[in-house]
Parts: sequence; C-alpha cells; structure tokens
Amino acid sequence: MNAEKIPDIIIGRLPIYLRALQCMADKGMKTTSSQELGDHVGISAAQIRKDISQFGEFGKQGMGYSIQFLSDQLRAILKVERIWDVALVGAGDMGHALSRYQNFASRGFRIVMVFDNDPNKIGQKIGNFVIEDAAQMVEKMRAAGIKMVMLTVPASVAQEITDKLVQAGVKSILNYAPIHLNVPEGVHVQHIDPAIHLQRMTYYL
Amino acid sequence: MNAEKIPDIIIGRLPIYLRALQCMADKGMKTTSSQELGDHVGISAAQIRKDISQFGEFGKQGMGYSIQFLSDQLRAILKVERIWDVALVGAGDMGHALSRYQNFASRGFRIVMVFDNDPNKIGQKIGNFVIEDAAQMVEKMRAAGIKMVMLTVPASVAQEITDKLVQAGVKSILNYAPIHLNVPEGVHVQHIDPAIHLQRMTYYL
Repeated sequence: MNAEKIPDIIIGRLPIYLRALQCMADKGMKTTSSQELGDHVGISAAQIRKDISQFGEFGKQGMGYSIQFLSDQLRAILKVERIWDVALVGAGDMGHALSRYQNFASRGFRIVMVFDNDPNKIGQKIGNFVIEDAAQMVEKMRAAGIKMVMLTVPASVAQEITDKLVQAGVKSILNYAPIHLNVPEGVHVQHIDPAIHLQRMTYYL
Repeated sequence: MNAEKIPDIIIGRLPIYLRALQCMADKGMKTTSSQELGDHVGISAAQIRKDISQFGEFGKQGMGYSIQFLSDQLRAILKVERIWDVALVGAGDMGHALSRYQNFASRGFRIVMVFDNDPNKIGQKIGNFVIEDAAQMVEKMRAAGIKMVMLTVPASVAQEITDKLVQAGVKSILNYAPIHLNVPEGVHVQHIDPAIHLQRMTYYL
C-alpha cells in the first residue's frame, strides 16, 4: 500500500465512513454491510467496497464488516488511533465555538493552545485555555511540535499568518478564513466557509 | 443550458471562483485570466476554462475575463444576485458564532430567524435576533417562505429536526451536526464537520 497512490477523494470519504461506524457502535451494533453503511452516508455500496478495498480486505464476502475492526483499521489508516494536539489561531466568535466544541476528543484531536494578537484578548480565558500572544506563536508551536492548526482569523491577515505557521512546522491547516491560502508542497489546507456551501445549494433552488 | 446536466462537482467550484473574483475586485482589479484565477484558488487554468465554458462564453480569447462581468454571471448562475433569507436552528456556541458572522451579506445571505428548544434560551437575544421557540418553527418558516437553514443542533436530534424542516418546505440545509442526514429528493444538504476535515489531513502526516 503506497500512500501516494490513493486518490485524495477516497481519503476524503474515509472520515465519513468512520463517523458513521462510530455512530453505529454507539447504538450497540456489531456488524454492518456496505449496503447499510451506504444508506447511512448517502454513498453507494459499490463505491464503499471499492474505497475500502484500496487498503486491504477488511470484510468477508456475504458476512459484512465487523464495525469495531473496520473502525480500528480506518483509524489506523487516517492516523487518528492517537490524539493530535491542535493549536487554535484566532480567538473570535468562531474560535470560541471551536474551543468549546465537544466532538474532537473522541475523533483524534484536542486543542492545546490558543493565540490571538489582540491585547484585549491576550491573557483572557477561552474555554479552558488562556489566550496567548500571537507574537510568540512560532516559537511556542515549534517547541510543542504542533503539526495541526485551526485558523479562525480575518481573511485580510490569513495568508500572512499562514506563512508563519508554515515556518513553525505546521503541516495541516483547517482554514475558516474566507480566502484561499497558498502553502508549499507538503502542507495541506482544508477550507470551511459556510457561504461557499450555501451558494452551492442556491444553484438548485 | 440544462441545470440537470451540469455535474455537481462543477457547481461546487463556482462559489470558490466567485469568492476569488470578489477578492480581486476588492483590490481594485478589473480583469483576470484563467491562469491568474487558478493561482488564487489552487485549480488549473484548463479546469477553470472548462468549468466556466459549461455556462457560456464569458471571456475573450487572449483578453481574459472582466472580473465584474464574470462575477455577475456566476452570481446569476448560483442565484446569489439576490439575498436569501436563512433560518438558524440551534442557538449554541456555533449558532452564536454564525449569528454574528460578517461574511454572509456580501455573498447572498442573511439570517432572519433563530430557533432553539431550550426554555432558558427562548426569548434571549443572539446577535440581533430574539431566539424563538422551536415548537413554532414549522409554521413560522412556512409563513416566511424560508428555503435555507443552518442547522447547529446536537447530532442526537438532527435527523428529527431535519424531518420537520422538510415539512416546513426547506430545500437547503447546511448541517453542522456531526451526522449524515437523510432527506427526500429535491432537498440538498451540505455538511460542515471540522473533525472530518482534520481527519482527512492527518492521513498525510
């Protein structure tokens, strides 16, 4: 199995399968089929079988999948069988919401530090964290070995801050600023922009 | 031009082009090329030309695109040349952040009502809104002709509330609950789940 060879679009579906499997496990279910999993995620059974078979044989013909086993395999593939430390940059409204978000821990993530450059915010508490000065961001992230960041700053400063995150050794950025970010090869960005998602749906209205 | 014939993946890229064009316009730029637009959004020039040509000839060979004209065309295609009324359901942390989000108005949306079922929240203010009782949600949305909702409720109640939204005539749901939603044909759902996006990136770490 060569990580380079799996299309990113398949990688993007694995967390969706994992979320559905966790939901099934929470309900006490032990096994599932590609058909049933497909009904849960709105993806065809054939597509699910094809996606999962990229990584090995995790189910038995006619027997379906063990939910526990398949979840463990997907967690290992996605490297979330461990907990990743994440830094939050930007202590505005969205930063506040994320700092209190309950669904990270069970899915492989915990926020460990929060930065802002506003003197009125530095030293204040947000969730369980004290907001730290963004001026010390690079050295503190380097020292802590932070690889993942959630970026909730205004669009006007997002690229400049991203360049600093790259300097600090960050490899994954979840970008809430409504702007595309340029990053060097080896750094991944995912974008969350509610207006983009809404516009994609108005087309069909 | 037949709306049914354009693949959804192309529709999904149009809001990204529009956002980049708005950003260029804000900087005072008048024209752009597919190459330059591509650099802004991380998509190849060839892909952009192909996507846009699905809808007509909006640029001139060797002359590039008028930013104003192409933006207007994309807004018309996406139906965001008008402002859509959106209801927010769930007045928790994420609901608070969205109710104060500054980037909707310029992109075709405004929140017009907020619902929750928590007696301690009903009647309280959130942003500029008074939180209304979710028990009256269906009739109030119907009366107001609401077609779009941002859903920021716990996963455990998201499907049940979605069924009510469908009853109320809602056609587009931006779902922040970490669970897949089943909806009838003709209703569109987009999902925002930060853990899904983070997991997609840990694969590459």
